[in-house]
This record gives sequence, C-alpha cells and structure tokens, in this order.
Amino acid sequence: MTAAGPAAVEPFDAVDVIRTKRDKQRLSDAQIDWVIDAYTRGAVAEEQMSALNMAILLNGMDRAEISRWTAAMIASGERMDFFGLSRPTSDKHSTGGVGDKITLPLAPLVAVYGVAVPQLSGRGLGHTGGTLDKLESIPGWRAALTNAEMLAQLESVGAVICQAGSGLAPADRKLYALRDVTGTVEAIPLIASSIMSKKIAEGTGSLVLDVKVGSGAFMKTIEQATELARTMVDLGTDAGVRTVALLTDMSTPLGLTAGNALEVRESVEVLAGGGPPDVVELTVALAREMLAGAGVTGVDPAEALADGRAMDVWKRMIRAQGGDPDATLPVARETETILAAADGVVVQLDALAVGVAAWRLGAGRARRQDPVQAGAGIELHAKPGALVRAGEPVMTLHTDTPERFERARAALEGAVVIAPEGSAPRRSPLVISRLAAD
Amino acid sequence: MTAAGPAAVEPFDAVDVIRTKRDKQRLSDAQIDWVIDAYTRGAVAEEQMSALNMAILLNGMDRAEISRWTAAMIASGERMDFFGLSRPTSDKHSTGGVGDKITLPLAPLVAVYGVAVPQLSGRGLGHTGGTLDKLESIPGWRAALTNAEMLAQLESVGAVICQAGSGLAPADRKLYALRDVTGTVEAIPLIASSIMSKKIAEGTGSLVLDVKVGSGAFMKTIEQATELARTMVDLGTDAGVRTVALLTDMSTPLGLTAGNALEVRESVEVLAGGGPPDVVELTVALAREMLAGAGVTGVDPAEALADGRAMDVWKRMIRAQGGDPDATLPVARETETILAAADGVVVQLDALAVGVAAWRLGAGRARRQDPVQAGAGIELHAKPGALVRAGEPVMTLHTDTPERFERARAALEGAVVIAPEGSAPRRSPLVISRLAAD
Repeated sequence: MTAAGPAAVEPFDAVDVIRTKRDKQRLSDAQIDWVIDAYTRGAVAEEQMSALNMAILLNGMDRAEISRWTAAMIASGERMDFFGLSRPTSDKHSTGGVGDKITLPLAPLVAVYGVAVPQLSGRGLGHTGGTLDKLESIPGWRAALTNAEMLAQLESVGAVICQAGSGLAPADRKLYALRDVTGTVEAIPLIASSIMSKKIAEGTGSLVLDVKVGSGAFMKTIEQATELARTMVDLGTDAGVRTVALLTDMSTPLGLTAGNALEVRESVEVLAGGGPPDVVELTVALAREMLAGAGVTGVDPAEALADGRAMDVWKRMIRAQGGDPDATLPVARETETILAAADGVVVQLDALAVGVAAWRLGAGRARRQDPVQAGAGIELHAKPGALVRAGEPVMTLHTDTPERFERARAALEGAVVIAPEGSAPRRSPLVISRLAAD
Repeated sequence: MTAAGPAAVEPFDAVDVIRTKRDKQRLSDAQIDWVIDAYTRGAVAEEQMSALNMAILLNGMDRAEISRWTAAMIASGERMDFFGLSRPTSDKHSTGGVGDKITLPLAPLVAVYGVAVPQLSGRGLGHTGGTLDKLESIPGWRAALTNAEMLAQLESVGAVICQAGSGLAPADRKLYALRDVTGTVEAIPLIASSIMSKKIAEGTGSLVLDVKVGSGAFMKTIEQATELARTMVDLGTDAGVRTVALLTDMSTPLGLTAGNALEVRESVEVLAGGGPPDVVELTVALAREMLAGAGVTGVDPAEALADGRAMDVWKRMIRAQGGDPDATLPVARETETILAAADGVVVQLDALAVGVAAWRLGAGRARRQDPVQAGAGIELHAKPGALVRAGEPVMTLHTDTPERFERARAALEGAVVIAPEGSAPRRSPLVISRLAAD
C-alpha cells in the first residue's frame, strides 16, 4: 500500500513484520532489532505491537528468535557489570509464588561464602507478593539505591536486594504494560525474554532460576514450566551467563506465612536456624546452585543458617539500606481464625486460594499505584500432611481493614481439604527437577 | 487482577474477552455485543481490539459468532430502509479487482426493469480502483447525497451510486482503520462482517456479491474466495437479505482499461451496446442475479444494453447527481506505449501488475487523503488469447506526471507473457461458481 508513497524513513514496515509472524514465518534478526527499537521510541504503535505479541503467543518463536528478541530488549537500555568487584556474582530469579520469601534468607546466606548477590527485585501485582513490599515492612528500609550505592554494598556486605533501576531493558517495561492489558502475558517466548533481558542486562555472572509450577504459580503444568525453564536456560547460556533452573512445587504455599511482615518474620526464623522445613530446604537447594554457579563447591549452606553467619550478613544488609533489623515488625489490627470443619489429615491446601485471600486482605495490590498493608496476610497452622481436629485453627487471617475478611474467606472456599486419618496428601517433591545448559 | 478493585462499571473485562478467543473458545453473544460497543465508545483500547483481531484471524469464529459480530457492528450505527419505495431493491458488492467498472453499467441496467439499485460505494485505496473516483471524472458529478436525496433519486431514476454515509456501522470504520495498520485485514470473519454490516444496515432487500479470485483480487485462491463467499452468503441469509455470490476470475484485468476516466469511457461503450465481451458478460450475469433477487425473471438484460434503455437510465442517473453525461472526459497529459517483445499469443496478463502500475501512474492513492488523477491509467490493446506481432503495442500508459512512467513500467515487468503461436492462454471461466443460501 505504500509502494507509491515517499521513500520510507524506517527500514521496515510494522505491518510486514506482523504478517511475517502471523503467517508462521521466522522473524529475521534485522526485523527483531528494528521492531523492538522502533516500539521503544514510539515508531511502532501500541496496537501494532499488540497484534505482533498475539501472533507470537499463538505461533511461537524459535530459540534464535527469542535470543535475538532478548538481546534487542537489552540493547534498548543500559547494561551493568560487576567486573570491578573482588567477588564473583550470582543471582536468583523466581517466577513467583505464594509465600515465596526465599530471596530474604537466600541472599545473605550465599554472601556468607564470598559470592556477591545483586538481587534487583520488584513489587507485587496480583496474588504473588513482591520482595520489595516484604522488606519495606522493616522500619527504615529503603528499596531505591543508586548503582554506586549498590556496588559499594555488594563489595562491603556481599548482598543487596533493591529496586531494579529504570534504565535496564526499558523496552521490556513498556512491553509488559502492554501485554498486561492485551491478554498476551501468557506467551513463553515473551515471559522468558522479559525475565532474562533484565537479568542479562544486570550483568550477573551466573543465575539460578526458580520456576514455580502448580495452582499458585504462573505455570500450572510441569510441561509449561519445563518449557519456560528450558527457554530461559537457553537464553542465559546463549548470552554467556551460567544458568540453571529448578522446577519447584507451588501447589501449596511455601512455609507458613503469606503477607509482607509475616514473611519477614518467618525469614528471620530461618536465618536464626529454625523456620518451616520447606523454606529451609528450598533456600539451601537454591544456595547450593548459586554457589556452584559462582565456582564455590564443597560447602554446606545449611551450616551458615545454623551457626548465625547468614543472620549476621542479613543484619548488615538491612542496616546498609537504612533498616533496623531488630525493630518490631508491623502487626495487623484485626485477625480472624479459620477452623477445621472435621477431624482428619490435611490433604490439600491450595496455593492460589491462599494467595488471593492474602491479597484481598491487603497484602497485595490490584493496581500498580496501590499501597499494601505491611501486617496483612495469612498464617497457616497446618500444612498438607498435618493431622487436625474439628474446631482447631487451620489458619489466621490478618488485616487492618476487617471489611476485607468476607472476600478473603470467599477466596478460601474449598481451599483446605481434610480427609479421614490415614489419607495421603496430594504432594509432589518440593524440587521437581533441575535443568542446565544442554 | 481486578478482583480486589472496586466493582467494575463494565460488564466484561477486555482481557477476558481476548483470552477467550486466544484460547480457541467461542465468544458469547454478550461478549461480542459488549466488545464492539465498548470499542466504538473507546472503553476498549485500540491495542486490546488489535490483539483480539489477531486472535480472531488465527483462531477463527464460527457462523453464529460472525453473525453476532456483524449484528453488533450494525447496532453501532443507523439503519436505513427502503420500505417506502414503490420498487423492490437489489444491491451488488464486489470485493474489488483491476478494471472492475461493472457497477457503472450494472446499476442503470437493473433499474431499467423497475428494480431500485442503491449502490453505496467507496473510494479506492491501493491497486483496486474506487467507484466514486471513477464517476468523479465526469464533470460536475457529486458523490455525497443526503439520505432524502438518495431515496428521491431511487424513486425517480431507479439507480443511485453515491458515497456511503458515515452513520452506517461506525464500528466498522474504526475497526477497518485499525486492521489496516496491524496486519489483520486478511481475516475472513472480519472481512465478511465488515462488508455485510454495511450492506445489511443499508437495508437492501437482496444482494449479489461478486467475489473476485486471482492475482488482482484480495483472495488469491478459489478455496479462500469460496470461504469468504460462503461466509457472506450465510451472514446475509441470517439477516433476512436474499444473498447470492458469484466467484469471478481476477487473474487478468476486466475489460481493456484500468483508471478512472478510462473506465467510465469503457462503461459508456457497454451502455451503448458495445464494449469488451468480458465486461458485458459479467454485467449481464450480475444483472440477472440482481433481478432474480428482486423477483424479476424471464427477462434478458442484454437487450436493455443493446436497445439503449440502460443508457437512458445512466444519463438520468448522472444528471441527477449534477454530472454531464455528454461532457468530454478528462485525458491524461502524457502517454507511453509498451510494445510486444515477440510474435506470439498472449498467454498471461497479470491483473495485480496492471493494477499496481495504474495506481503508480496516478489512478489510485497510497493514503486516504491523496487526490487521484482522472485521466491516469492503462489501456490494454491485447488480452490473453490475442495474437500479437513483435513491436505492436500491447498497452498504453496514461499519466499527468511522466516521472511516474518508470515505476509503472517496473511494476509491469513480467506481467505480459507471450508464447509461440498455438499456445493456450492460462484462463479460467469468467464466472467460476455460484453460491446461494444452503
């Protein structure tokens, strides 16, 4: 339609790029580089990128296309590097789950062994909490650091958990906001490139991915989760980052708490050598992978939880960002308890239901600009496998705004299944599988 | 994501509607009604409709969905009706081809037999010409009529070719502009509903569809064209309009001219009882269908071309809209002739190449707001099957702007294939098939 028009300034026409993917063809490197760059600077319109995203969701991209797409998103912004550090770096990313507070004990634990952990994190949206929201329940703690502050803290403390700067992969930020309103979030090539563009741009030497699978996770089946994990491991490997993924169970919440201050409390228990066994197990498993990625082997990270070394790094890390690790954590104004309806064994405790209920109680936000309640959330008194008696508490709901109890209870309808004593809970191993470079 | 937010004012969430089609489910009647209405009033964003369009293109819609989608587009605007007329109405729509001037002789021809022909037409965009652009080469003729003027002319003359009012299916206008820039034009459900929403809203009693197939048409294969024709016949039938479709060949141009005034001149030749046989054949075939749709049978429309009755209606129709049917038509300032490279028989004359060349000469426009040249276009001196000698003219290019000759010639590279005498041209019958209600 434009053949008779003036010579085009742009090397490609967005409609041709869309048609290529619509018609199940490969996008060329030059098409990918152009479309990401042109979208970032506004020369490809939102409605054009939206059509392309839907075509990618339905028709897919191959490994080389996803790799190029990721590289183009990285090229849209700044890159960091940690070459000046005296320590190797290792980072972790979780695809998000209910009660997933692992970053909090994990970052200081890995730092104990001389590995630098730069954890650029986000806030929560929807039923999975955000690491920054959790840490902000600690009085005085601040999420925003300059790059220089971050590097200095990595050198001095060894671990930093802070807000990702806006300079990393700006194309991804724009693209994610678009995908969120156009039903194109659930495309594995787009999820993988979104996560990996930021991790690669950040400049970590090695990376461990915790890919959640189950009701409380983004990926509901092992097949989907495996595909996402494989795609991300390939992307990391192609970009020269040593990348490993663990598929981990998210059919039931991690630990016994979901909610900001509640999760910090539980994390501190783990750092003190206690805490729920599943949180400890996953923290140690991920620490072992991160250490291996950074070349540290022959150590048992469980020891540094037991002997207080991880707690020491935690306190220094919190203080370095203005927080008081010994301050009393916020507590919600109101609580309600949910009781067991029958005697028996808990065979199911649904992660999604608990996540949605915690969110409705005020632990999460519906819109990006909403505040969260530091004290809101859910404490679990029984996990799958536990024996309960009718009338005993199975969970406690916390909120500052008691009008929210009703909708939280509605979300929990059917979430806890109690079967006659002797029944086996539906459980998979916590760490389901491990994927590394081919 | 919005479950914790305030009660939604809208009955649906655009993301849920997009996901439904993305996941290959049927859209409900209520979803369709809502999404078209909300898009028209701006409550569904362009990028959301774009994602939905791509999902429809790739995952399809069934007959009931397309029917409801069309009804929702009709409901977005005004409906006309011709119940007050003393004559039955019959309309024709062509999916567009090169040299397709059939509307010009056809409308007055059908009116000869007491059937009212309300031809709401458009301007050209791309390589197929627009009926209004052609008629506007007649000095004084105006395309814009009020509804009252149109009705009065239908009653007095029996035929009117005018610009479609902006009140018919405004959702379609908005949607078409979006599809044009997002690579989602080529979706049969969307093409069919776009065409039929306007034809049904216009209120015609019967409708004949001329679905073109071949290089110069939108549909390149008989399978695609048949699917489009079947979809449109079903839509018309479901809406109570007697609808028939003819699949007709568009591998080579219709007649011997492509270009605005050039096509008017050829149409007048047909109305005078002469003209190229293919134009006469198709005009008569479509007239027969239109008359049958309006209940007129047992007549031979070829007679009214031969005896001047169609010409009489044509002159009255042109005069009623301010035109002078006897005025000299505009002629381009410059011409160039393309000569046969060899002796032999023309076995191929590509419609798309001729259409693009005519467009580049100035007969068409690249952007909606561009002007067209009344005299620009192409005259063909030989059609497939014709014997030519090396050095004889095969076509003449016309333009007011001779700098365009070069790009027009480039478009014509390889368009004319001359084979040794005795070779058979690649030709299909002009009318390939006929589809009516099941």
